[in-house]
Amino acid sequence: MIRVGILGATGYAGVELVRLLSAHKEVTLTMLVSQSYKGMKISEVYPSLRGVCDIVCEELDAEKAAKNCDVVFTALPHGASKEVIPSLYEKGLKVIDLSGDFRYNDKEVYAAWYGQEHSSPELLDVSVYGLPELHREEIKKTTLIGNPGCYTTCSIMGLAPLLANKAIETKNIIIDAKSGVSGAGRSLSIDNHFCECTESLKAYKVATHRHTSEIEQELSLVAGEDITLSFTPHLIPMKRGILATIYANLKKPYTKDELIKMVKDFYKDEYFVRVYDSGLPETNHVAGSNFIDIGLEVDTRLNRVIIISAIDNLIKGAAGQAVQNMNLLFGFDETEGLKNAGLYL
Amino acid sequence: MIRVGILGATGYAGVELVRLLSAHKEVTLTMLVSQSYKGMKISEVYPSLRGVCDIVCEELDAEKAAKNCDVVFTALPHGASKEVIPSLYEKGLKVIDLSGDFRYNDKEVYAAWYGQEHSSPELLDVSVYGLPELHREEIKKTTLIGNPGCYTTCSIMGLAPLLANKAIETKNIIIDAKSGVSGAGRSLSIDNHFCECTESLKAYKVATHRHTSEIEQELSLVAGEDITLSFTPHLIPMKRGILATIYANLKKPYTKDELIKMVKDFYKDEYFVRVYDSGLPETNHVAGSNFIDIGLEVDTRLNRVIIISAIDNLIKGAAGQAVQNMNLLFGFDETEGLKNAGLYL
Amino acid sequence: MIRVGILGATGYAGVELVRLLSAHKEVTLTMLVSQSYKGMKISEVYPSLRGVCDIVCEELDAEKAAKNCDVVFTALPHGASKEVIPSLYEKGLKVIDLSGDFRYNDKEVYAAWYGQEHSSPELLDVSVYGLPELHREEIKKTTLIGNPGCYTTCSIMGLAPLLANKAIETKNIIIDAKSGVSGAGRSLSIDNHFCECTESLKAYKVATHRHTSEIEQELSLVAGEDITLSFTPHLIPMKRGILATIYANLKKPYTKDELIKMVKDFYKDEYFVRVYDSGLPETNHVAGSNFIDIGLEVDTRLNRVIIISAIDNLIKGAAGQAVQNMNLLFGFDETEGLKNAGLYL
Amino acid sequence: MIRVGILGATGYAGVELVRLLSAHKEVTLTMLVSQSYKGMKISEVYPSLRGVCDIVCEELDAEKAAKNCDVVFTALPHGASKEVIPSLYEKGLKVIDLSGDFRYNDKEVYAAWYGQEHSSPELLDVSVYGLPELHREEIKKTTLIGNPGCYTTCSIMGLAPLLANKAIETKNIIIDAKSGVSGAGRSLSIDNHFCECTESLKAYKVATHRHTSEIEQELSLVAGEDITLSFTPHLIPMKRGILATIYANLKKPYTKDELIKMVKDFYKDEYFVRVYDSGLPETNHVAGSNFIDIGLEVDTRLNRVIIISAIDNLIKGAAGQAVQNMNLLFGFDETEGLKNAGLYL
Repeated sequence: MIRVGILGATGYAGVELVRLLSAHKEVTLTMLVSQSYKGMKISEVYPSLRGVCDIVCEELDAEKAAKNCDVVFTALPHGASKEVIPSLYEKGLKVIDLSGDFRYNDKEVYAAWYGQEHSSPELLDVSVYGLPELHREEIKKTTLIGNPGCYTTCSIMGLAPLLANKAIETKNIIIDAKSGVSGAGRSLSIDNHFCECTESLKAYKVATHRHTSEIEQELSLVAGEDITLSFTPHLIPMKRGILATIYANLKKPYTKDELIKMVKDFYKDEYFVRVYDSGLPETNHVAGSNFIDIGLEVDTRLNRVIIISAIDNLIKGAAGQAVQNMNLLFGFDETEGLKNAGLYL
Repeated sequence: MIRVGILGATGYAGVELVRLLSAHKEVTLTMLVSQSYKGMKISEVYPSLRGVCDIVCEELDAEKAAKNCDVVFTALPHGASKEVIPSLYEKGLKVIDLSGDFRYNDKEVYAAWYGQEHSSPELLDVSVYGLPELHREEIKKTTLIGNPGCYTTCSIMGLAPLLANKAIETKNIIIDAKSGVSGAGRSLSIDNHFCECTESLKAYKVATHRHTSEIEQELSLVAGEDITLSFTPHLIPMKRGILATIYANLKKPYTKDELIKMVKDFYKDEYFVRVYDSGLPETNHVAGSNFIDIGLEVDTRLNRVIIISAIDNLIKGAAGQAVQNMNLLFGFDETEGLKNAGLYL
Repeated sequence: MIRVGILGATGYAGVELVRLLSAHKEVTLTMLVSQSYKGMKISEVYPSLRGVCDIVCEELDAEKAAKNCDVVFTALPHGASKEVIPSLYEKGLKVIDLSGDFRYNDKEVYAAWYGQEHSSPELLDVSVYGLPELHREEIKKTTLIGNPGCYTTCSIMGLAPLLANKAIETKNIIIDAKSGVSGAGRSLSIDNHFCECTESLKAYKVATHRHTSEIEQELSLVAGEDITLSFTPHLIPMKRGILATIYANLKKPYTKDELIKMVKDFYKDEYFVRVYDSGLPETNHVAGSNFIDIGLEVDTRLNRVIIISAIDNLIKGAAGQAVQNMNLLFGFDETEGLKNAGLYL
Repeated sequence: MIRVGILGATGYAGVELVRLLSAHKEVTLTMLVSQSYKGMKISEVYPSLRGVCDIVCEELDAEKAAKNCDVVFTALPHGASKEVIPSLYEKGLKVIDLSGDFRYNDKEVYAAWYGQEHSSPELLDVSVYGLPELHREEIKKTTLIGNPGCYTTCSIMGLAPLLANKAIETKNIIIDAKSGVSGAGRSLSIDNHFCECTESLKAYKVATHRHTSEIEQELSLVAGEDITLSFTPHLIPMKRGILATIYANLKKPYTKDELIKMVKDFYKDEYFVRVYDSGLPETNHVAGSNFIDIGLEVDTRLNRVIIISAIDNLIKGAAGQAVQNMNLLFGFDETEGLKNAGLYL
């Protein structure tokens, strides 16, 4: 049994961590930190947890955290993580950070997309990009993980196999991504008022979304050359789920079966990756689970492939992947606590 | 390990059984029966199950069922169950039936509300009403369980404590119940066309819904006198969840705390019942879990209590409760496979 | 042509007034007041209005309002109206107030339910309860209208005919009402965050909702005796629409047809009231229109009637009814600007 | 006053025609044809129409249609129109067809995408593509209009200005389109069962959707060269609305303002086209109206433009555009019956 703390436990990624870890047989939750709800039980904030997890939320105390936890998940707003993590890290805690702060290899890229200097650039050298299907061995050995976000996981994993196989052109890659509203978190905003987003649909941060840089970083590594691409996020009137529709020009006229085989081979033995021989992923195929589903079609008229990938943004796109990383970090079965099927309904 | 079969595996209650039982550590699924999808993998019908349960659906073969299963769940349309179950039962199979067919003690009541004679009245004497919180000991000893439906579970469990304590009048009880669309099943109907039910709300089967008779049967037993009451179901534009708003006149001016205590005492040590000291249940507190949440308010002006109870119609209102019954039937921990918190989001 | 101003133009009732009045052939909009968005075009706040109404929102200036408007609609939060309206009223402006502040005949009732003294009790004597189907002649002669809210319109109009006919008992009346989220307005709150209310359902302000007192006031007038009743509001995951499910015990065993006839006779010649001979109202029958639909069923077992009434909370429950009142006030055709069918889809 | 008939009046496009034409001051509805609901009032099928339009649906009688109508709208399934229309047309009726059957200039293109020969190829020479903003003068003079569908209207109108100005490359154009469920019509299908599509999201008919050929036909005319492009439709859990996210490479580094100006100039004086200087269209900006909203962003890193266009699929994408065409055909004000703002909420 390891002792686990969660910072930002009352946000949507945080409470998903609480839910998953409450059912994890190697874990004891020892500390839930919430600025907004300190002194309240987590199950008062989220009554779905009554009887399952009734821990009282507290303020952050780094000393106490170091004493009571073996690992800490930080599910804080972007920017807040990098203020808090160094103090935890230097006390010897393992940290799995769900923000964007430690996902970058290059502080200049961070500064360019986040509009500020990184305050702990030395930790960027330590931190590992926590996408197990691409960086499993590094993750096992590190102590600081930058856990990828939802858009990036879905986009990178959809494109990686065909780029690794040099089957597609690196110019004219377009990722048109659609996310449920929980991706925006629990903070109040007119954009997530029920009446403003239900029965409506919009694109946002067109050509400027920060996750573009993360996707480009990881896919450039996979491709062995610099990749730039279009990434457009959309807000969809549903709670959970991300679907990425990815367009790329084929280098030569591959058949669908050939491309499917490339994807299958690339993700051979990966429990959480399901590749479709026929049909295409939909978000209710993965909602409530840690799976990523990938399918594709070839447009032979245009010699173009359209890849569809789908995840649950709060699980494979956040809390589930973080638990998967924790499993690797501590040598547990990688799928422990994450094997269940999604709800479909 | 017991061997389990599911008839009607591709309906909504059926697939929920598949999902829950795939994660149950005492169960091996050995047979999925589906008339509509025979020859297809269950995971082709519900891709959420890919990699978790890929059993091929087959036609019903009672001989084979008897040979390969220790217990069979029947999640068939009302009416169909009573044609099939006798042949399974006489082969010695334990049966947990999710239809209304074996929930009645009195064949006359069945005939009156279902508009037809019961074809196996002798089995009504054998069958037990599968609400563990009221009939646990009988369930343990039976071999045929009539698993209660969603509206009835939510209604009966909300009212039972105050009726048992004779705290409320037995006249003028009104149950105004609201259900998500999955309660209507997967069959196609203009009523469950997305565009017809989203962003809309309706009452249906007003004063005539069959579940009224089940609720009256069970509450009459609890109260020790004949109860008749109003039950009005409503269709709500959401997938899962039932909320019952129950009105009853108090026999004397009880305080809220006194009534809450009655409910808590009545359900003492029940893992799946959560009683609210303050606040009220909402369906997202229970969605995805086997819990039933109960709260109440007293209207001191009118000396009336308003009880609110909430369940996930597919779990505590169908598949979860059926698994709870199976656990009792086979002497497993009653909560095995059912302890998880709901999703909230 | 009359000149019309709207205070609180950027709230949900306010913008619905803008939309309806932009298409009203006897009206020129001359002033839109919004504290939050002053200096912005209404069509920048609600782009649906681009090209239809591009008026710039301004701060309230009572002098200017008196000079430029013949009538003012006040769609302000409860409590705010009564601070502002006296100054407008004494300048000779006609006022149609959409808040609860001027809906009461008795300042004591107001004080009891709102927890504060009314600051302009003398205006309560002047103001008329703006439900045209009950108070048409008084409305025509007044200059200050307390426009009823959504829950009250739906509840009062459903019950009035049977109470006026003394067909139902005045004890044990229960109104179980269900509203879309727009009823809670545009202000940010965790309760109307998309992820918190979609796919969920709850009761709120059980036994304490202020509208109870309004309903009791008006129905006591209709019945000629003091009525107290239960009113329970619920929040439904949809934008628009209210459905009230109303339970009352019959004084004698009326048939459905007899009761339907009472309702039809009571609302004879009312354009906006549609009574169902068979079937029952659903909110998508009225959404987008000023209609109120009423149906009922008789439970002969229990000698009880269940009345179902449905309106669009923003139209017949707010802005549409206010326009109907304006039409009466100025002698226009009562249906002008309001005759369209709802959208259904 | 003209006399108007509607074939397929009880489908979603049909009922939207009924709703719009009931409020059109130059129109008398004289005939509603519905195979499925003959003998029933349209207001029994869609109770939203009660009191507004209570015409009884009938079977098709071409003789009677010719006698009682000046124009007929055909809102029939694809394929059915071309069987019925010749007989109406030869009787001298003007016909506005909402199916795909008469939208093609080239019978070979029709045959290639629809998998069958066109049965009335001679009428393809007569019919005009009913997109008023591109073909206004031809529409005025014709008697048979192929009214464009929802995806095509949104796609063509978003791209036409920049293609006409030769500002974008004609290779690598990608249209990623998202539609509400009403686009699939009222026919029952597991795909539009509430529980299967709410809270989920999917792409469908990837690389094979028939509307691709329509979009290519019209844009090739605009561009003066053959255009082929990717078109991917998605199903979104909402009722109404289409959003197209369109990607194209710029021929040179235009600024956003330069491109916006091109679009504005192209649609100068078009009432129904609203171009955004800043911000981007969302579907609730247009839902319930005949407007098309267009915005764009330039990705200067990639020298690519992302165009966003939004319409209500049932109005500008079907019934509203058909009424706009009727207005042109009969010399009415083009905006008659269509000037209202959308509902936003």
